[in-house]
Amino acid sequence: MVFTSDALELLVDQFSQLPGIGRKSAYRLAMHVLKMQRDDVSRFAGALIGVKDRTRYCSVCWNVTETDPCSICSNVRRSSELICVVEEPGDVFAVEKTHEFKGLYHVLGGALSPLNGVGPEELRVKELLIRIDEKVKEIILAINPNIEGEATIIYLSRLLKPLGVKVSRFARGLSVGSDLEFTDEATLVRALVGRVEV
Amino acid sequence: MVFTSDALELLVDQFSQLPGIGRKSAYRLAMHVLKMQRDDVSRFAGALIGVKDRTRYCSVCWNVTETDPCSICSNVRRSSELICVVEEPGDVFAVEKTHEFKGLYHVLGGALSPLNGVGPEELRVKELLIRIDEKVKEIILAINPNIEGEATIIYLSRLLKPLGVKVSRFARGLSVGSDLEFTDEATLVRALVGRVEV
Repeated sequence: MVFTSDALELLVDQFSQLPGIGRKSAYRLAMHVLKMQRDDVSRFAGALIGVKDRTRYCSVCWNVTETDPCSICSNVRRSSELICVVEEPGDVFAVEKTHEFKGLYHVLGGALSPLNGVGPEELRVKELLIRIDEKVKEIILAINPNIEGEATIIYLSRLLKPLGVKVSRFARGLSVGSDLEFTDEATLVRALVGRVEV
Repeated sequence: MVFTSDALELLVDQFSQLPGIGRKSAYRLAMHVLKMQRDDVSRFAGALIGVKDRTRYCSVCWNVTETDPCSICSNVRRSSELICVVEEPGDVFAVEKTHEFKGLYHVLGGALSPLNGVGPEELRVKELLIRIDEKVKEIILAINPNIEGEATIIYLSRLLKPLGVKVSRFARGLSVGSDLEFTDEATLVRALVGRVEV
């Protein structure tokens, strides 16, 4: 683009490096920043730096945290019998939002994807294994049900079962509020195979 | 959301205040920032502040600039006979990208929209009028062809024509590369009415 301001061009470049933001959206965001109050922009800039400076990974569950161990791992009211294994910190937030799970988490940092160079060494698998002691009764694999996720579930279950711990995975079936007519075949098959008595 | 880090929550809040970015996208962006290098995040934060601290509006054309007057207004090779009136600084960049226009610009700062409280006082109409002297031969109204834009074009042309200056507007018709079948009726009517001999 032909800009009359280098600072504006620089900000557009920065925004367009974010995932899912193209050149046009980046420009729109930069124009919005231009119209924002100086204080609000400072706050935004501060929040960016703050995330880098104040957060770290929990040394127990590898979730994003400001205190180590994180508020979930250090919460004595949470059961240490259950460990929910997820791919990313965002998945912890997703499960937490349900307010149904009262155990602990383990963030793998992704799913196995040999084509992209992600093997077990790149994930926090070793860190999961050392957490498993006699207190742990069940490992719930809350991994995304896609190709990489399925491979990760198979890999982890083969690794965990010999340790004498129960290994489960999230149920697959119809989404709540969904429409049978528009549900894909693979999901319908899972819903049929996994049907439950009413 | 249930976050284990206030800094992360703050950044998600900040991102979600940007136009067109919902809570989920904001979260995805924040997670991306978390994975960025510290230096890159500093650069991003610096670019935000830079846009506020280094840019201002050109006192002649009201485009975004770092020098006053801007690089377009102070370019002696550009014709001062033509003034292209646009709504926003982004429109200047759009016209500049064509490399076809060699005149000057005037950024109105929006279009007339009485329902949203935008009257002539809120736009840089007075600032446009004082720029019109005997040197100016033509005012090109490059205003967006929507309801607010059309009202603005009518308003400005009534104001400008008595000053003895030629007032023109961008042609409306088929987009280059478009398909007649999928072109809306209003555009087709304009293309038909404004047909040119080949």
